Amino acid sequence: MDTTSTAATTRSVGEIIKEFPRTTLRGVGQVMFQDSAWTGLLFLIGIFWGAYAEGFGIVAWGALVGVVVSTLTGYILGLSDNNGSQGLWGFNGVLVGCAFPTFMGNTVWMWLALILASAMTTWVRSGLDVIMSKWKVSSFTFPFVLTTWFFLLAARAFHGMPSTFESTPELPAAAATTLDLGFGHLVVYWLKGIAQVFLINSWVTGIFFLAALAVSSWRAALWAAISSAIALFVAIVYQAPGAQIAEGLYGFSAVLTGIALGATFCNFSWKAAIWTVLGVIATVFIQAAMNVFFAPMGLATLTGPFCIGTWIFLLPAYKWFQPANN
Amino acid sequence: MDTTSTAATTRSVGEIIKEFPRTTLRGVGQVMFQDSAWTGLLFLIGIFWGAYAEGFGIVAWGALVGVVVSTLTGYILGLSDNNGSQGLWGFNGVLVGCAFPTFMGNTVWMWLALILASAMTTWVRSGLDVIMSKWKVSSFTFPFVLTTWFFLLAARAFHGMPSTFESTPELPAAAATTLDLGFGHLVVYWLKGIAQVFLINSWVTGIFFLAALAVSSWRAALWAAISSAIALFVAIVYQAPGAQIAEGLYGFSAVLTGIALGATFCNFSWKAAIWTVLGVIATVFIQAAMNVFFAPMGLATLTGPFCIGTWIFLLPAYKWFQPANN
Amino acid sequence: MDTTSTAATTRSVGEIIKEFPRTTLRGVGQVMFQDSAWTGLLFLIGIFWGAYAEGFGIVAWGALVGVVVSTLTGYILGLSDNNGSQGLWGFNGVLVGCAFPTFMGNTVWMWLALILASAMTTWVRSGLDVIMSKWKVSSFTFPFVLTTWFFLLAARAFHGMPSTFESTPELPAAAATTLDLGFGHLVVYWLKGIAQVFLINSWVTGIFFLAALAVSSWRAALWAAISSAIALFVAIVYQAPGAQIAEGLYGFSAVLTGIALGATFCNFSWKAAIWTVLGVIATVFIQAAMNVFFAPMGLATLTGPFCIGTWIFLLPAYKWFQPANN
Repeated sequence: MDTTSTAATTRSVGEIIKEFPRTTLRGVGQVMFQDSAWTGLLFLIGIFWGAYAEGFGIVAWGALVGVVVSTLTGYILGLSDNNGSQGLWGFNGVLVGCAFPTFMGNTVWMWLALILASAMTTWVRSGLDVIMSKWKVSSFTFPFVLTTWFFLLAARAFHGMPSTFESTPELPAAAATTLDLGFGHLVVYWLKGIAQVFLINSWVTGIFFLAALAVSSWRAALWAAISSAIALFVAIVYQAPGAQIAEGLYGFSAVLTGIALGATFCNFSWKAAIWTVLGVIATVFIQAAMNVFFAPMGLATLTGPFCIGTWIFLLPAYKWFQPANN
Repeated sequence: MDTTSTAATTRSVGEIIKEFPRTTLRGVGQVMFQDSAWTGLLFLIGIFWGAYAEGFGIVAWGALVGVVVSTLTGYILGLSDNNGSQGLWGFNGVLVGCAFPTFMGNTVWMWLALILASAMTTWVRSGLDVIMSKWKVSSFTFPFVLTTWFFLLAARAFHGMPSTFESTPELPAAAATTLDLGFGHLVVYWLKGIAQVFLINSWVTGIFFLAALAVSSWRAALWAAISSAIALFVAIVYQAPGAQIAEGLYGFSAVLTGIALGATFCNFSWKAAIWTVLGVIATVFIQAAMNVFFAPMGLATLTGPFCIGTWIFLLPAYKWFQPANN
Repeated sequence: MDTTSTAATTRSVGEIIKEFPRTTLRGVGQVMFQDSAWTGLLFLIGIFWGAYAEGFGIVAWGALVGVVVSTLTGYILGLSDNNGSQGLWGFNGVLVGCAFPTFMGNTVWMWLALILASAMTTWVRSGLDVIMSKWKVSSFTFPFVLTTWFFLLAARAFHGMPSTFESTPELPAAAATTLDLGFGHLVVYWLKGIAQVFLINSWVTGIFFLAALAVSSWRAALWAAISSAIALFVAIVYQAPGAQIAEGLYGFSAVLTGIALGATFCNFSWKAAIWTVLGVIATVFIQAAMNVFFAPMGLATLTGPFCIGTWIFLLPAYKWFQPANN
């Protein structure tokens, strides 16, 4: 960090401005581990489409503000440049930007908090990676998760940043499992499972996201598709609450676990494929567990289940699978 | 792990099958830190006795499935052989096998989850030990605790794996302290405190467990007996809920802390004995604290209080007491 | 620890007794990072004044017992002497001593628990520092926080140590924001924010504390004053519950973060000052978040938000700001 940060600081402002759009788009792409501006651009289009289709266009603008602020923060702090031009400053910020208007009311104070939180993810990530590098794992989207948990919880105490769209705190109780299992419906749930990675409840966005992944990596697109299908299957078989399945809420964490294990940190092998499938299944149980654990606080799990599931499957495995780029 | 895993893989299948029963029984014994197949066998007899006496024979069969699956997983993953032949792959699995039918309804999906969770404990332990070895402590039964928490919580969302026997989620409130303090009753509570290490609510099983410990280590049996007595005393004096005391629910974590500190990780000395007593007392408070903390989710603490209590007393102490086998 | 612990043990009892009052007072001072017996003495006077003014004199006596017990524990365990004579054994104990009578009923068993918990903080700190030294951060007041959480939660189960003054467990809900914003009132809230570091609800005590800090470090006093003001401003602007603002409950963690970042672990620079202000603001959100998270258990956050906030701002930063004494 010492030598490279000097390098980053000495880059001319002109260079930084020139590469800024590409760096920012890569930040969007890195949410699903793709170091590609084109993937990021297609993700962003999918977000805008889905957000406006839901009547929540503000979510897309939040995403844009979040990724710009968190990427800028990386430059301002003079963090390692290589890291940043790969989009690794931006992927937590874009998720903060999606989450804040999804769960909180639209006030000036919410937007100020969104800016603070997006910036924070950049150094929270830096700090968590100081810790986790000891075990050769990454913090994934946990900087987004942790920072956003603070603000979503605080919103219940702060009237100036109201918890308008968060779920009501309640003791965990059984929910109805009613679910339409027609083939067309299943396809919608499956695509929404992919779209919900960016908190978008739209099957069209799911198609955009699959296409965006395919531009950068067929393997990533394949694992995203497989993982959402596995998660859907497990959730139906175990009779999870129907309304949650229908919105893709058992899919998004599993999709990320699938891309992480199957197409990012393990080289391909049959062993690695079985390992990935197990990881995806485990993530579905962890998703349900965290939904229940946070019910009394009315807190969303965000992509926490993906982080925990992937850590559990990477930590003991890093010596076996000769991880690709870790 | 690199070299030994090769060694493990090259062992003939015949050898593995031949030693499998002993390895599995040692797995049962290692729940209380005993590397002894005879202790494991007596534990298992105690579990079967108690489970059938309670009218819950299924718990004993769960224990058997759990220890077999988690031990097999160690062989399949090709983990270090030495570790496994000491039973260190099995002790978390046997506890998963006791816990699942104790808390969840008897469905096919519950059994599939039991198998997945038992297998998972083997690599969760491997992963946690990658982390904890930095500080020369072990993960103890925490792989069982963490994995089982995920599934017990998920059971509240998944109708296919019903949370039938879990306690109802409720805000923490005072409970009646009524308790029969006759000598015969006290002996029963004391023995149940030991039996509950394997989630068995039977004083006869407590006698089996003490005998099983004595076969392998008088010191371990003594500390188990002392620790359950101390925990009983503290819970009565501090007026814990009577129904919980009567079922031995303040004893089991304290018993494990006592065996860990008094008879496993510290050489004998008066200083170590006082340290162990303090650790046992602290574990009783941690047990009560976690009972309250998890009340709104209706989640059982499992042996979490033992893990936390023992970590707190081992971490700062490892330089003083020249630990026996750590 | 090996060589120094021998050194500590060989110190004569006479020497230890002679330096004991100074060591103990330094322990009180270290709560706000001041290695000064005079600061500790003024803190203690402020505690006694405020406790008796509130009609809760028992809190001040608890503080005295806590700091004495935890400091003695350091000598008895033969921990590194240098550490102890700087007061680093005592600062968690004095906070335990303030917290126990503040939240629990006055029984013999509560006092026994207070003694056990105060002693525990000394080795919990030693253990946590074994962990955290890997990342060059300290455990701050987290040994107090963790230990006290155990006992405050346990108090809900144990009638012998009643949870008399803890808040009622309830699902998080909106609270009234009514607050008198007259200048005199604002000054009172601001001073109480500083006094609440030791759980004292008295503005006069806030003045004592500012004076006590100034005796040892103008910079620390200044950052305490600034941080309490920032916290007050953020809490008002974001419309936090009025009753909590009025008692200084959004101030105390922020005050500690401000002293830690602004006057202890970073050398002075404009960059460090901006960093400190950001840390203080983030701590206010973390305070609100933890208030909400713990509502269903009726658990106080204690100085947990300060620990988390300061870790988040120190971990990534330790290479930039050339920390003063870390």
